[in-house]
Amino acid sequence: MSRKRSLFRTGPLDSSRVEAFSDGVLAVVITLLVLEVKLPTGLRSEAELWQAIEGLLPALAAWVVSFMFVLTFWVSHHYFFSSLKHVDRGLLWLNGLFLLTVALIPFPTALVGQYPGMTPPLAFLSAVMLLTSLSFLCMRFYASFNGQLLKDRLSKAQAKEAILQSMIAPALYAIATAMAFAWPPGSILIQVGVLLLFFLRSPSNHGPKTGLGKETPR
Amino acid sequence: MSRKRSLFRTGPLDSSRVEAFSDGVLAVVITLLVLEVKLPTGLRSEAELWQAIEGLLPALAAWVVSFMFVLTFWVSHHYFFSSLKHVDRGLLWLNGLFLLTVALIPFPTALVGQYPGMTPPLAFLSAVMLLTSLSFLCMRFYASFNGQLLKDRLSKAQAKEAILQSMIAPALYAIATAMAFAWPPGSILIQVGVLLLFFLRSPSNHGPKTGLGKETPR
Amino acid sequence: MSRKRSLFRTGPLDSSRVEAFSDGVLAVVITLLVLEVKLPTGLRSEAELWQAIEGLLPALAAWVVSFMFVLTFWVSHHYFFSSLKHVDRGLLWLNGLFLLTVALIPFPTALVGQYPGMTPPLAFLSAVMLLTSLSFLCMRFYASFNGQLLKDRLSKAQAKEAILQSMIAPALYAIATAMAFAWPPGSILIQVGVLLLFFLRSPSNHGPKTGLGKETPR
Amino acid sequence: MSRKRSLFRTGPLDSSRVEAFSDGVLAVVITLLVLEVKLPTGLRSEAELWQAIEGLLPALAAWVVSFMFVLTFWVSHHYFFSSLKHVDRGLLWLNGLFLLTVALIPFPTALVGQYPGMTPPLAFLSAVMLLTSLSFLCMRFYASFNGQLLKDRLSKAQAKEAILQSMIAPALYAIATAMAFAWPPGSILIQVGVLLLFFLRSPSNHGPKTGLGKETPR
Repeated sequence: MSRKRSLFRTGPLDSSRVEAFSDGVLAVVITLLVLEVKLPTGLRSEAELWQAIEGLLPALAAWVVSFMFVLTFWVSHHYFFSSLKHVDRGLLWLNGLFLLTVALIPFPTALVGQYPGMTPPLAFLSAVMLLTSLSFLCMRFYASFNGQLLKDRLSKAQAKEAILQSMIAPALYAIATAMAFAWPPGSILIQVGVLLLFFLRSPSNHGPKTGLGKETPR
Repeated sequence: MSRKRSLFRTGPLDSSRVEAFSDGVLAVVITLLVLEVKLPTGLRSEAELWQAIEGLLPALAAWVVSFMFVLTFWVSHHYFFSSLKHVDRGLLWLNGLFLLTVALIPFPTALVGQYPGMTPPLAFLSAVMLLTSLSFLCMRFYASFNGQLLKDRLSKAQAKEAILQSMIAPALYAIATAMAFAWPPGSILIQVGVLLLFFLRSPSNHGPKTGLGKETPR
Repeated sequence: MSRKRSLFRTGPLDSSRVEAFSDGVLAVVITLLVLEVKLPTGLRSEAELWQAIEGLLPALAAWVVSFMFVLTFWVSHHYFFSSLKHVDRGLLWLNGLFLLTVALIPFPTALVGQYPGMTPPLAFLSAVMLLTSLSFLCMRFYASFNGQLLKDRLSKAQAKEAILQSMIAPALYAIATAMAFAWPPGSILIQVGVLLLFFLRSPSNHGPKTGLGKETPR
Repeated sequence: MSRKRSLFRTGPLDSSRVEAFSDGVLAVVITLLVLEVKLPTGLRSEAELWQAIEGLLPALAAWVVSFMFVLTFWVSHHYFFSSLKHVDRGLLWLNGLFLLTVALIPFPTALVGQYPGMTPPLAFLSAVMLLTSLSFLCMRFYASFNGQLLKDRLSKAQAKEAILQSMIAPALYAIATAMAFAWPPGSILIQVGVLLLFFLRSPSNHGPKTGLGKETPR
């Protein structure tokens, strides 16, 4: 029976094709973000223009945060997929869910730029970031319970460790979502904090700066 | 004579290049969809903002349905092309036709979000989905009658089987188009139904969950 | 001296990277076209909606013509680059010029949809198509006078033959541009005609339909 | 310890994946630029249309300059990455910074088209070009101080030479930014000048035209 429908959909997918498609979506999302930064038309004097550009600072800040957010997930996505032997249907759909949540990011980012400092846009943006990090966690979770997907050199224990660390981001984005209702600036601070956490935790792979020793090449 | 014009256009195309281009188009389409979800400017209070976000629920729902629709066709496209030995001119143009119909999707999706629950947008969206699934069926049809395109391990009988199964989606989208005139919500239900059908039919390739047995790796 | 600046820019480029970038640009251009098809907001009855959709027919027609135009050039681009051994700087910039002209296509396409049947948009669109086909002709011209770029199995005579055939499209688009001033519909007819010419001339590579005999596989 | 977090992020990245993602972003940026060229709606006569198209000349000029700017950086990016053995985390983030600055280009380009000849848009565009060339310089700088990243055949002295040459563009863009305040047209002249400098300095790799001798193939 499995042979009979083999033309339709069959066997494990080549992980490189899924990565290429995901890369395409992430590259388009990260570039589309800037389309939401717009200056009103009909300004006349240079003074008005400078003022309008100044008024865009919240939109530009939201753009930077969302850009770094998508970039961060591109890096994570790349490292995660490089740990996979191949991709099955379940992971394909979980990856689709991840792309769905990431592809929504430009909308709340535009909202934050349009209505800076207000609760609804910040709550919306934090919630979408929460959903994105949750769907990414699901992918890790799924892969760790499906030993055939991971490359042999990675033990399940290591995958579990990675999952635990992957839970930090969703937890913080959940707090950021709640914070949008209590104290909007706190929501922004947490969003920036998660990014910094990601950067600071990243070990440099070369040179003596981090002192973490040489990591084995992939 | 065939040699004389060989610089121009010659011989079978490398299927990987066609796939890469199609992937690019699908990745851009799936990401552009969110640009049609927009909040009006000039709102003042947070209450107004929440109300406006609530008013976007139909647009967000249309976005999810269209996103999953394109994702589904990306999966099908990938599996179909992985069953091909190479691509000839005829398939190239049929694939172009498929890309044409898929690339139109953002427009009726925006319409459904702009004018939710009305007949014209839903009929338009269902009709474009119908055309997309029909052009995909044409590709399968063409490949099954052109034995040189399919990989040897796939018999023509299997291709015919796949074609029969591929006819379900166009049939349902034709009904969804008609339903938009009779009872608009029914049109949405069918659209969601086709997606669910696609997910439920997908065999998981690993683990004992589906009980379909191991499929041969590609 | 050539070694000294070798970190900067050196030696022949890998043709696959140039192709991949060009594919990316063409995939985005071909997908962006649909963003210019928009329905006015604020319509109330279904009758108004149907009328508005009917009013979009010129925009949809312009979209189809431009989509097929870009698709046609993607096919030509692919076949042309598959005839190259490698890419040098000169060809790189000519390819950049080609991408510049193709990337402009969405703008006059939108104009034709906005102001159907009028001279300026049709003249503009035909002129951009003329520039695109001219820049493509330049690439062929450059490659044929630079024997080191072409694969050995292709003689210069064959390249010259290809150039002669490549001159047909610019000539027809020049006429289409002039026609926009004399009789606008004639401009559209020529644009569609060039596409049909391209399709009809394409030999099918398999099967007995065209009777052109088997072409040698690439 | 380094093994423990190996699922998370580990070892040197494959440079081809980073290049592919950067290519995607650059391809989308270069194509999005044209979306900012728009004609007002509601024009009636052909005379009005011609006048409106004439009024778009500054926007079209800004589009050409920004297009060539991004294309130039794509070429530089490609040559730079082809000189790398692999990519580490530090370079990954510097590349992300480069993409961030390039992805902003469509916004000031639209401004220059909206408000031609005024100081704020030109100062903004020059400043973003300055930031882009600076972030690219950082990448070169980082790679030259991290000998493990460069291919063996390239000495550190050559990398230093390349860095010195890479400093010309930021210096000129800094002047262009200042010039926008003193004499706006001068800002445009410098922007165009940097592009010409880049083109003129490019050695042709084949034929006797440049007389620079044969460069060693990559």
